[in-house]
Parts: sequence; structure tokens; C-alpha cells
Amino acid sequence: MESHEVESVIPPVPELDEAAMVAARRRQGELTKPPGALGRLEELSIWLAGVQGACPPRPFERVRAVVIAGDHGVAGAGVSAYPSDVTAQMVANFAAGGAAVNVLARLVGAEVRVVDVSVDSPEPAAPGGVDGTAPGERYRVRRGSGRIDREDALSVEEAERAFLVGRLVADEEIDAGADLLVPGEMGIGNTTPAAAIVALLCDREPIEVVGRGTGIDDARWMVKTAAIRDAMRRGRPFAGNAASVLRVVGGADLVALAGLLVQAAVRRTPVILDGVIVTAAALAAERIAPEARRYWISGTRSPEPAQAIALGALGLTPLLDAGLRLGEGTGALLAVPMLRAAQATLAEMATFDQAGVSGKSAEAAGAGPDPAQYSDPT
Amino acid sequence: MESHEVESVIPPVPELDEAAMVAARRRQGELTKPPGALGRLEELSIWLAGVQGACPPRPFERVRAVVIAGDHGVAGAGVSAYPSDVTAQMVANFAAGGAAVNVLARLVGAEVRVVDVSVDSPEPAAPGGVDGTAPGERYRVRRGSGRIDREDALSVEEAERAFLVGRLVADEEIDAGADLLVPGEMGIGNTTPAAAIVALLCDREPIEVVGRGTGIDDARWMVKTAAIRDAMRRGRPFAGNAASVLRVVGGADLVALAGLLVQAAVRRTPVILDGVIVTAAALAAERIAPEARRYWISGTRSPEPAQAIALGALGLTPLLDAGLRLGEGTGALLAVPMLRAAQATLAEMATFDQAGVSGKSAEAAGAGPDPAQYSDPT
Repeated sequence: MESHEVESVIPPVPELDEAAMVAARRRQGELTKPPGALGRLEELSIWLAGVQGACPPRPFERVRAVVIAGDHGVAGAGVSAYPSDVTAQMVANFAAGGAAVNVLARLVGAEVRVVDVSVDSPEPAAPGGVDGTAPGERYRVRRGSGRIDREDALSVEEAERAFLVGRLVADEEIDAGADLLVPGEMGIGNTTPAAAIVALLCDREPIEVVGRGTGIDDARWMVKTAAIRDAMRRGRPFAGNAASVLRVVGGADLVALAGLLVQAAVRRTPVILDGVIVTAAALAAERIAPEARRYWISGTRSPEPAQAIALGALGLTPLLDAGLRLGEGTGALLAVPMLRAAQATLAEMATFDQAGVSGKSAEAAGAGPDPAQYSDPT
Repeated sequence: MESHEVESVIPPVPELDEAAMVAARRRQGELTKPPGALGRLEELSIWLAGVQGACPPRPFERVRAVVIAGDHGVAGAGVSAYPSDVTAQMVANFAAGGAAVNVLARLVGAEVRVVDVSVDSPEPAAPGGVDGTAPGERYRVRRGSGRIDREDALSVEEAERAFLVGRLVADEEIDAGADLLVPGEMGIGNTTPAAAIVALLCDREPIEVVGRGTGIDDARWMVKTAAIRDAMRRGRPFAGNAASVLRVVGGADLVALAGLLVQAAVRRTPVILDGVIVTAAALAAERIAPEARRYWISGTRSPEPAQAIALGALGLTPLLDAGLRLGEGTGALLAVPMLRAAQATLAEMATFDQAGVSGKSAEAAGAGPDPAQYSDPT
């Protein structure tokens, strides 16, 4: 996948519905509260009206968390506190409903789908399809992505396939009625490629993007920083081409996430971005399909520095700042209630007229101050 | 109500259950995630275990938003952008289910109760009791609190009564099964007494605590600042006595909120604090019943500067920072899903043992780095 090939097949990203946003903004001024008093909920509701092309926006009926799983050869360099086996073990934990993503999904009314794009297991770690009845092979690009400090993560063909898998998953979900997508990920070692992607696309040094991931000690931190440096050296000639950056220093999971994010935008489906992995993929996706970011919001701030850099480049501010650094989609799921709150307040609150409530007055029923008394007497 | 009278009748605030907190902290280390990866959710879950005296903590079954409504004579000075009539009109809007507090309560699985403590209406604006079948008169202290820039908000008897009403409401709710309380408020002009309370108890100047409230212009802002100054001048002799500060520069609603907050703590019931009004009442309540704050968390940061000052004095950091400045309990309700998420993750996630997932290793399956190679060679 080099960008000219990708770009030729991606439809343009539609604009948000300006009329619906104007109507939403007007309605926010008519609801029984001071203008602006709901803060970010008001901004979110206006954005959602624009995404859906409807004022008031509709409640979400099918929220889907899609966890893209994949291993990374660079884990073999010792960049993570956990062995690569944990990726497949956690995919099994997702299937059993025991992981944080499962618990939070249940709580916010979402369902979890796991897609094995590149887990390093003999057989696919997860079945395929919206309902888990399709063969997992259809979604699997390879067993683990290449060790990026020494080799490309993917071949051109593999990258192309991974991008299509991501788009396919988005299409499948949207065709099945998904009206809010929450992409997540699982993969030991995946903060290393994410950091390298962000550093290359934003022209930063390794030291600016490296983080503690799952909680590494100082020795591993030095190994990780060196791995990012080496990957960046290999990837630097491609830095102007986001698709190639994903292929060379990313991985099949990151490419698939980018494909999913692009396709969601093409199909006017809102997305809540999770932590550093998904946000790094989003940064690349925005370069591949300009203005795809119109359809994305950020759920939770991560302590990983690369997330903040990518968010800055995307012009996004997370809804929450709760210190989550787990991935899986958990930081995005935690923000779902806030988006539901934005929809519900705009759709369900009474207006001043409906409720017979007096509006804001310049002179509050004769009790107001005389502004003249404060004018400069000179 | 002067403090010696109040303190003599308030039982001591129980300590949190240390054993349950130790167990919760240990369990957080056994769940299938890196230690600490759930950020504030982990802290919250440990706190909740301590409050409930149970590990894992139980899910909330009855979340009650209690909106304390009252008018303020100081609104007559022109400190608000809205006329005082709006208080009673909004209480009617609450009853009809059309306000933001109603919408958010439905969304997060809470119920709304409105208590008219001091609305300036001929008849009580809301019925009384847990189910709204008791006479509203039982909860009403007076019609509007005194104009604090010129007179005491309440007589000693009224303040005593308001405090008891707040404690009564907490008792009623807890006796009816409430396991999470979300106090809110409605009252045109009430950010003025809240600011005065915080300034007196924290020894601040009017300019440090005054905010835009519902969105006042510069002329009203100057009127409001002067009203706070005048109220503080009247209240300063009582600054060492939180109960008296509430009586002189607060109002029946603020006293009742303080009583509710104290009683919730005495009865080991968790509370999410809302914006500046509830937080000002909490600051006073903590002085009246030391360590009551053990049972409180803060929901959402308010743009009102007095909230930040009061939170700092209480040692609390809000869960959310979403720019809400509506009150009613909305900022606290918006944080309910995060508290539910804390409970659910600790209670429902699988442990490493249960899920057969490999734990963190100092040397990840033989692929780890050799720390010696990074030691200082000199």
C-alpha cells in the first residue's frame, strides 16, 4: 500500500451537515438553561447533529467496540513488560467477557467485537464477522507484524490487505446498523510502533514520543527508545507518506485501524478515539483521507506523550482525563455516556417556551442595576 | 444555629473501612490489566470499597439526585441575569421532567427529588417526602433567604431548622435505600452567597471568588462583586464559625445542603458533589463535621472560581472538566457513569489466574534486555 494506490480508491469524506448544526446551535439557546451552561455537552450535541444530519440528533441504538488485535515483532526487542503470549491470552479473555473492555462495554450499552488481524498464534485468535460466525482467516493478514527496528512491519501487499480489512470491518458494522464506533486494540509491544508513527508524521524525536506503555522500568524504557529510533531511521525516507509510514514502522493492526477510521468517516459514522494506538492510526488516517477527523472525537487523555502530540495535530481535545492507559477501547467507552448526555439534553430538554420559564433579561424584572452608574464619569 | 449547638448533636463521622480498601487495592493488582492502567477508576474503586466496607464494592441500586431549591433576597440587588421568578418556574420544570437534571438522571439511572427549602412563592413549590406525598410545608424554612448584603440570610432558629431539614432529607433517602446521593440546587442568585461563604471560610477577597454565574455582563458583575463584599463585611466577625457563616451570608438552601452532606457522611453514604453551590456547602459542612469529606467525591469542575478554591481546601479533584456551569446536580450526575465504571471493573473483571493470562515479568520470556548493559561503565 503506497498512498497513490490507497487514495485512488477512497471516496471523499463528506462534509458535516451545516443546516443541522445551525439548528442545533439555535435550539441550545432555547432550552431551559443559561446559554452555554452545558459546556462541552453543547459542542458535542452540535457536532453530532452535523454528523447525523439531524436536529435534534437521534439516540445511539448500536454502539460497537471493535478491538483490533495484533502482535509486533519488536516485542522481541524487549520493549514491553509483558510477553507476546499475552496478546492471544487477552483475546481469549475478551471472548470470555472478563476484560476491562467487556465490563465497560456492558456498562455503557455497547457490544465488543474482536478482530485478529495479526496475532502471533497458529490459528486466528478470534472468529470473523459481525456475529462471530465468519472464518477468522478472512481478517488475518499475517502472524505478527515485522520487527520494525530491523525490517518493514509489512509488505506492500500485506499493508494493502490490512487497510481493506479495516474498511471491510467498518462496512460490516455500519451495514449491521452500528451508529457509533469505538475502535480499540490489543497487542503487546504496540505503543512502540504507535510512537514511531507519530514521531515520523509530526517530525519529533524518539524521546518526545516514548512512554511507559504497560508500565516498563528504566532499562526497558531505554531499549524501547532505541527501538523507536531505529524504526524511525528506517522509516524516515517515507515520512511524507502516511500510508508508507504505517507499512514500514506500524503494523497490520495499525493499518487496519486506519482503514476502519477512514471508512467510518466516508460513511458518516461517528467514532470515539481511544488511547495512543488508535490516535496514532487516526493521525495517519487523516493524512490518507483529509478531513476524516470531522467524524471523530477523542475519549480520554492518555499519559503516553505520543497521544497528546497526535491529538494536537488532529485538533482534538479529549473529553476525559482520567489517567487511563489500558487501551482496548476502554478510554473511548468511558466517554460514551458523555456523548449520550449531549444527545439526550439537546433532544429531550424543554424549551423556555414549553416550560413557561422566563428567559434571560438585560434588566431582571426591574431589579437590575443601572449600567450608567458604572460608566466612566470623566 | 451556632456551631456549639450543631456540633453537640452530630454523631462523629465514621472512618472508611481500611480492610476493604486494602483488599480492593490488592485485587486491582490481580485483574487482567497492567497495575494502575485504569487510572482514576482504580482510586475510585478503592475509595468505594472503603465507603461500603466491602470488596468488591456493590453496584449502586438507588441513586438519588436531591435538588434543594431556594430563593435569595440578594437577587434583588441585580446579581443575576435572570429574575427570581425563574426559581419556582424551574422547580415546575423539574416536576415535569424537562430540565437538564431530569434528562441526565434518566440517562445515568438516577431519580430526581426536589425539595423547596426557601423558594419565594406563596405555596411550597414542591411536595415533600421521598415519593412526593408528604406536605411540602414540612421542608420549607421561609420564603426566600434574607438579602445578605444588608441583613442576615437567616435567623438562628431558621438556620437550625434548615440544617435539620437537610439531615432529615438525607435520612429519608438513606432509609428508603439510597446508596448514592447527588445533591443539586436551584435558586436565582445563589452563586453570590456561595462565593461569600467560600471567601469567608478560605480568607479570600471578593474578586477571587466572584464568577459569571448564569452568564452576567460586566455591569452585573460589578454589582455582584460589591454584594459579595458587603455580605463579607457583615459576615467577617463569624468567619471562624462555619455554621454562622452559612446563616449570615448563605441561605436556607445552603444550610440544608450542609446538613444533608453531614448526615450522608455520618451514615456512610457516598456523595458526588456538584458545582460551586454544593461545593461551598460542602466546605462549610466539613468544618462543622470534620472528615465528612471522606464520603464525598467531586463530579465536574466548574468555571466558578469559588468552586476551585473550596475543592482545594477539601483536597478534592473533580472527575470531569467539561465546562458545565448549570448546577441542578448536572455536573455530579454526569460523573455517575465513571463511579459505576470503577465499581464494575473491580467487581467484574477476570483476574490473571482466572483468565490464564501471563503476568508482568521482569524478563519477558527470555526476550528482555540485559539491564547491566545500560549501567554506568565508569
